[in-house]
Amino acid sequence: MPLPRSGPVRSEAARQAILQATADLLAERGYDALTIEGIAARAQVGKQTIYRWWPSKGAVIAECLLEGKILPGRLLVPDTGDIRHDLSQWLTTVFALLGEDQGETLLRSLVAAAAENADTGRRLRDSLTGSGSVAGRLRSAIGTAPNLTTDTPVDELAEALSGAVILRALSREPLREPDLVRLLDAVLGR
Amino acid sequence: MPLPRSGPVRSEAARQAILQATADLLAERGYDALTIEGIAARAQVGKQTIYRWWPSKGAVIAECLLEGKILPGRLLVPDTGDIRHDLSQWLTTVFALLGEDQGETLLRSLVAAAAENADTGRRLRDSLTGSGSVAGRLRSAIGTAPNLTTDTPVDELAEALSGAVILRALSREPLREPDLVRLLDAVLGR
Repeated sequence: MPLPRSGPVRSEAARQAILQATADLLAERGYDALTIEGIAARAQVGKQTIYRWWPSKGAVIAECLLEGKILPGRLLVPDTGDIRHDLSQWLTTVFALLGEDQGETLLRSLVAAAAENADTGRRLRDSLTGSGSVAGRLRSAIGTAPNLTTDTPVDELAEALSGAVILRALSREPLREPDLVRLLDAVLGR
Repeated sequence: MPLPRSGPVRSEAARQAILQATADLLAERGYDALTIEGIAARAQVGKQTIYRWWPSKGAVIAECLLEGKILPGRLLVPDTGDIRHDLSQWLTTVFALLGEDQGETLLRSLVAAAAENADTGRRLRDSLTGSGSVAGRLRSAIGTAPNLTTDTPVDELAEALSGAVILRALSREPLREPDLVRLLDAVLGR
């Protein structure tokens, strides 16, 4: 006999409904038209349910991004076996996104939410360490490139590369091809 | 005969008065008590004068930080001739600041303001390239360390190191001594 639905189970269902409603509304109407009221109506929850978990619309969007509900898969680092090629591909994808109005708004709202909310900030950094992340890809590349050995501080390398991306996104500077090469030189060595 | 005071001259005086009032009020009352109304009253300008140049209190604080009106000199990279020692000292200072309530709030409000305001974002990145900055110090160290040659992409190295600091500040993680060593290993090589 199935157990009766408990509080935490209902909460997780509501959380998922809120994130899905946010992702759907963003795709349909864009960032500026997105409101907590609109999300609540679409997810069929009260506004207070949203505010219980997130302080702002930016924080909900940040969680969608970190859970892959928005831009699913587009921020993963590919793995072709060639680390320099894969990071180059990842940087190209990220900066192509930053070149789109919607992508720029989303990624900057993630940074703003992380600045305002400690939990979002921690999750942003955690998202850099798993598989499919920059650190995960660097880890799997140990031994395949001259500068990547078991002694290489891969988490800090990933932090440096991702941090450079954040800083450049904040400056609204595009990453041109020579910049990309120099950034990879700086992080992976020449 | 002195020229009559022109518009731009009066504007610069007002701008300086606003930045000084912001720095003074922050020191006296702290971040939470700081309001645009309070800044306007102290600087003897109208609120609209402030909003003409800055969209939010965070943006005014960001400009104070970038002009050295807040924490003057504390964010400069020292120059003792030993680049690794100097960057280690700088990182220690920055993370000591992030360990203080006020410092953490200030530096995170700078990142939030940069996320929200393109001009602040550009100035944040520009602040990393001058003398006394990470890039400036790396540039003056070319030839003094095995991994710093005229071919080294110093601007990108500075971007990576500063970006790592921003990312770690967003995650509210302290930088312990072993992390600091690994981060410098990642950026300067071992």
